[in-house]
Amino acid sequence: MRNISVIGATGIVGKELIRLLEKRNFPVERLQCFASSKSVGQMIHFKGKRIRIKPFEIAHLTDEDLIFFCTSALISKQYIPLCLKTNATIIDLSSAFRQEEKIPLIVPEINFEAVGRYRLIASPNCVASIMAVCIANLHKHYTIKRIVASTYQAASGGGTDLLQALLKQSKAYLSSKTLPHDTVAFNTYLHNSTHFADRYSSEEKKIMDELKKILKAPDIKISVTAVRVPVLRSHSISMNLQFAHPFSLSEAENVLQNTKGVVLKNDYEQSKFATSMDATDKEFVFCSRIRLDPSLPNTLELWVVGDQLLKGASLNAIQIAEKMIEKK
Amino acid sequence: MRNISVIGATGIVGKELIRLLEKRNFPVERLQCFASSKSVGQMIHFKGKRIRIKPFEIAHLTDEDLIFFCTSALISKQYIPLCLKTNATIIDLSSAFRQEEKIPLIVPEINFEAVGRYRLIASPNCVASIMAVCIANLHKHYTIKRIVASTYQAASGGGTDLLQALLKQSKAYLSSKTLPHDTVAFNTYLHNSTHFADRYSSEEKKIMDELKKILKAPDIKISVTAVRVPVLRSHSISMNLQFAHPFSLSEAENVLQNTKGVVLKNDYEQSKFATSMDATDKEFVFCSRIRLDPSLPNTLELWVVGDQLLKGASLNAIQIAEKMIEKK
Repeated sequence: MRNISVIGATGIVGKELIRLLEKRNFPVERLQCFASSKSVGQMIHFKGKRIRIKPFEIAHLTDEDLIFFCTSALISKQYIPLCLKTNATIIDLSSAFRQEEKIPLIVPEINFEAVGRYRLIASPNCVASIMAVCIANLHKHYTIKRIVASTYQAASGGGTDLLQALLKQSKAYLSSKTLPHDTVAFNTYLHNSTHFADRYSSEEKKIMDELKKILKAPDIKISVTAVRVPVLRSHSISMNLQFAHPFSLSEAENVLQNTKGVVLKNDYEQSKFATSMDATDKEFVFCSRIRLDPSLPNTLELWVVGDQLLKGASLNAIQIAEKMIEKK
Repeated sequence: MRNISVIGATGIVGKELIRLLEKRNFPVERLQCFASSKSVGQMIHFKGKRIRIKPFEIAHLTDEDLIFFCTSALISKQYIPLCLKTNATIIDLSSAFRQEEKIPLIVPEINFEAVGRYRLIASPNCVASIMAVCIANLHKHYTIKRIVASTYQAASGGGTDLLQALLKQSKAYLSSKTLPHDTVAFNTYLHNSTHFADRYSSEEKKIMDELKKILKAPDIKISVTAVRVPVLRSHSISMNLQFAHPFSLSEAENVLQNTKGVVLKNDYEQSKFATSMDATDKEFVFCSRIRLDPSLPNTLELWVVGDQLLKGASLNAIQIAEKMIEKK
């Protein structure tokens, strides 16, 4: 790779992605950063240099090798078709193209081969990629039949504004004991995305649909409840997994132990299990509270925690690019 | 009722119970308050009077009509046998006797008739009573086969100390950006009770066992994951309920609408659903995000929120006593 652009460079995911490009020493010759008009002119620090944020203009993007879209689905839908007319490879972190049949939806540990020769690659929803990393290997061994999951999603998953609201409201409560009625601080509330006719939210739908696509398992039955909690960073998921084939607890633990990208924190002797804080800024996903569900045969309970800004977003996108370089 | 005693009067549940005795104008002629040595001598306000906290001494309890135990299971186990030698009726909010076959475990809306002639009555675990109120009527109509639930439990469920830790750590983070490794502030973590050989925590086990006893349904299959979130007050539960008999969504909603103690907040048009804050200081339980689970026939997803200090503890105990008076 030589010329790299990041669209949406000042958002919470864009910033993490640029930080990781430097931290992982990703081969970059020239980095361009783009954002919406309110951020234009700001400076981004990268490898000791200061890079000025530019407004999106296709004229700046005719000579790129790789373009990361850390934008909303709306922006991705608008600008990616323009970028596809250049020679760049595009990695889109938004949901815009994830469900298009011909667009690969990639978690490198699981399905990198699906990348094929496509020049537009989608990186999955944050919860979907964290769940997928954890369960793909189990699925390969014992075939998942049904998943029931409830999420505990951090405020930073809703972007800088939601994270700031959490901090500001928490501060206000601690000094004056007042909270707005729709507070995000000290409150548990349902993921505020729109709802479909079947009453699943768009966040839940993304998780359900994307897991099936990543695992190449359209027949898995899934129900997800997406919830936000007043946590700074890292998403947790309580998962109930029913399998087609039998296994023992130690066999399942062994499979998880040997799953790439997963670390076990599952110490029942000391009651040590993974928390949101544990997973924050970690590049792997924690798997915890592994136990057999006595309420149904071949069924496992798992508590999974991952940094949604890393494996759930920026890191996964960079790992896709790294794999592409490796393959060349 | 005439003479009433509260054991554990300075704990978070004891205080709520005394506040509710006054608020509900419960018939009290003389109130005595007991607590551990560190609280002895403190004053409790009740109906314009100040009541001095005394240390537990059975000599003070020989003339009671009703004794509430808002204590740990350990204390209940130690002192209740002594109190049973008096003529008092005892309502125990701890887990000490809940699983004893002959001791009734009562949620008044559901199984008050089981109270029988027993002089010791147990009030259930906070999550169990909130869940039970919500699902009992559904169970009566369609027979629950299996429950998979994940909890989102408030810090105040762990008592005054945990609530204070949440506030103190939140304040420290907001001023200095530092958090202890095992922080409860801005963190999601697993319920820190001990674990059984099957890897379920004692909190999870209580919920699972008590639901079966309250619903008189030993054959229901249940798996619960108990989690704490940095919320001040009210527990939320994400529930997946599989039934033996079929129903339509509107039939299920109708049953919930007509369930005593339950209020629906289930507005998919406006995306308005119940939060922890909504349920705080409310005497009913909110039922929200009602939807059919497409992954299994006859299966319902519910999001339930209730004030664990009220319906989950003190209110339920007082409602038991009120029903007893009503019955006399």
